[in-house]
Amino acid sequence: MKKMINAVESVLEESLKGFAMAHSDIVKLNHQPHYVTRKNKPDSVKVALISGGGAGHEPLHTGLVGRGMLDAACPGHIFTSPSPDQMMMAAQEVENGAGILFIVKNYAGDVMNFEIAAEMLECPHETVLVSDDVALPKDHSTGRRGVAGTLIVEKILGAAAEAGANLAECKALGDKVANNTASMGVALSSCTVPAIGKPTFDITDKQIEMGVGIHGERGRETTDLVSANEIVTQLCDAIDQDLKPAKGQKVLLHINGFGATPLMELYLIYNLAAAFFEERGIEIARSLVGNFTTSLDMAGCSVTLTLLDDETTQYWDAPVHTAALRWGC
Amino acid sequence: MKKMINAVESVLEESLKGFAMAHSDIVKLNHQPHYVTRKNKPDSVKVALISGGGAGHEPLHTGLVGRGMLDAACPGHIFTSPSPDQMMMAAQEVENGAGILFIVKNYAGDVMNFEIAAEMLECPHETVLVSDDVALPKDHSTGRRGVAGTLIVEKILGAAAEAGANLAECKALGDKVANNTASMGVALSSCTVPAIGKPTFDITDKQIEMGVGIHGERGRETTDLVSANEIVTQLCDAIDQDLKPAKGQKVLLHINGFGATPLMELYLIYNLAAAFFEERGIEIARSLVGNFTTSLDMAGCSVTLTLLDDETTQYWDAPVHTAALRWGC
Repeated sequence: MKKMINAVESVLEESLKGFAMAHSDIVKLNHQPHYVTRKNKPDSVKVALISGGGAGHEPLHTGLVGRGMLDAACPGHIFTSPSPDQMMMAAQEVENGAGILFIVKNYAGDVMNFEIAAEMLECPHETVLVSDDVALPKDHSTGRRGVAGTLIVEKILGAAAEAGANLAECKALGDKVANNTASMGVALSSCTVPAIGKPTFDITDKQIEMGVGIHGERGRETTDLVSANEIVTQLCDAIDQDLKPAKGQKVLLHINGFGATPLMELYLIYNLAAAFFEERGIEIARSLVGNFTTSLDMAGCSVTLTLLDDETTQYWDAPVHTAALRWGC
Repeated sequence: MKKMINAVESVLEESLKGFAMAHSDIVKLNHQPHYVTRKNKPDSVKVALISGGGAGHEPLHTGLVGRGMLDAACPGHIFTSPSPDQMMMAAQEVENGAGILFIVKNYAGDVMNFEIAAEMLECPHETVLVSDDVALPKDHSTGRRGVAGTLIVEKILGAAAEAGANLAECKALGDKVANNTASMGVALSSCTVPAIGKPTFDITDKQIEMGVGIHGERGRETTDLVSANEIVTQLCDAIDQDLKPAKGQKVLLHINGFGATPLMELYLIYNLAAAFFEERGIEIARSLVGNFTTSLDMAGCSVTLTLLDDETTQYWDAPVHTAALRWGC
C-alpha cells in the first residue's frame, strides 16, 4: 500500500484536523466523537441538516458543511458507518428550534444508526434517504446504494432550509430531489482502504468495473476497457432508462471523479454525457464537474442526472459557502 | 495505459469542449488555435493577464480564467508548450488598453514561445517568470522549474489588475510574489502521458520520488516510502531553508495534489506542514488545499509557501470567479 500517512489508526484524526484548520473560517471540529459543524450559527431559526457516513468520500460530507448546505457532518471511520452517538451529539449542537433533517445514503449500517439516533432525539425530526445508484435494480434486496446524487440533495435542501422551509417542506423537497436523481459509475482501478492494505477488488490492466459502488463494491459487470464514448453510452443509457426524462426536460448533469481521475478526463466525459442527453432533447441547465463523492484513490467516475424544476433550480443557484462548494457569497 | 478517452489525438480538444461547456457562464473557448478567455469583458480598462503552458495540469491554467484572475489561458498539447500564435491571438482578443502581462512557468519552451509572442505584440507588455521549485538549486543550468506557486502569483496579480494596478505595478508585484514563493513536491507514482502510453518514470511499490517536477521530472532522489511526517519534514525543510521566513512572518500555505491523491491525504499533509511552520513561529494566515497544479494521474503532492504582507493578503482575499477558485462573488 502506497499512501502518505503516518499510521493506519490516525489517518482520519490527522486528516480531520488538517481539514478543520484549513477551513477554520467555515467549520468547527468536535473530537471524540468526531463531527463537523458550521462555525457560525445561522442568522435565524432553521431546520438543521445533518449528514454523515463512512469517511473516504471526501469532500463529501465534511466539505459540504457551511452556510447554504449542511449544519453538521458525522464521519465514521473509513467506509464505516458513524455511530448514533456522533449523530445525537451533532444534532444536539446544531438543533435550533425548527427540527432536524437527516440526509442518509442507503447503506444498512448508516440507515440503522441514523434510525437509532432519530429515536433518541426529543425534537421533531425527519430523514431523507438517498438511493440514486441505478447500477442495481429497483427491487434489490437492500435497495439501491446512495452515491454522488447525495450532494445534490444536500445542496438543494441546504438552500431551502436557509430560506426558511419548515421540516415537512424540507422532507418533501428532499424526497422529490432524491426521486428525481439517478447515478451510475465506472471504475478503472480499485481503491485501497488503509486498514486493509490491499485493493478492495482485483482488476486487470485491461478491465473496467461497470456500475461500481463508492466503496469499490462490484457493479453490473467486469468488462474490457472500452472507449470513453462507450463508457458514457452505457452509464447514460442506464440513467436515461431509469429516470426517463421527457424531451425539453431541464436537468443538472454532474460528473463526479472517484479521487484518482484527472480533471482532464472528467471534462472529456462531461462533453460526451452532455451530448448524449442533448441529442435526446434534454436541456443541460446546470452542471457540476469534479471530485466530490470519492472512493479514496479509486480511478473512474460517475454520471448523475437530476431532473430540475423552477424550485430546485432556484435552490441549486442559491448562495453556498462550504469548503468544497462555494458560490454567491 | 488505462484512461477514459476516445483517441490520443482528441483528448485535449474533447476535454476543452467539456470544460468550456460546463463553465459557459465564466469562459469562452477559441478553437484552432486553442485558448480560453473570460466570457465577460472587464468593467473597465485593466492590465490583461495571460498564462499558459502544456495541458495536463488542470485546473491550471484554464480553470483560473475569470473575474479577478486570468484574462486568458493558452493550453499547449499535453506537457507541450503552447505556440506563439496562440498567445498572440489571445493577447489581441483580451488587450483592452492597459497592456499585457504574461505569467510564465520557467520551462525553456514556454519561455521561448512567450518571448516570441511578446516581440510580436504592438502594445505595452511585461512578463513575470515563476520558478518556485526549490528541488533544484538556484544556480541550476536552466533555472528552477515553475510549479504550484504559479497559481498564487496568478491570484494575487489578478486581484491587483482588477483593482486598477498599471502594467509596471503588476510586473513589480508579480516579481515580488514569485520571489517570496517556494515549493517542493513528492510523487508516489508516475503520470502516464496518453501519447506515450506508459509511465514517464519507473518507481517500485516501495519507493517515492522526492523533489519531482509537475511533468514527472526526476527530482532530488528516489527514496524508500517513508511516513507522512518524514515526507513533510523533507519538503518543508527545503522550503524553509530557501525562503528563510522570520519568526512572526505571515504566510500562505498551499498543499497541492498532483491529480491522483485523495483529499484525505492532502488534508493530513496540510496538518503536518502547518505544524512544521507554526513550531518555527510562522503564522499560517491563509491556506489552500486541493488538486490545482496537477500532473495528469500522478499520485503525490507539493507544499508551497508564500510570504505575505498586507498588500498581497488583501489581493489574495479579493473576489475571484473562475472554474477552480471562487470566492467573494
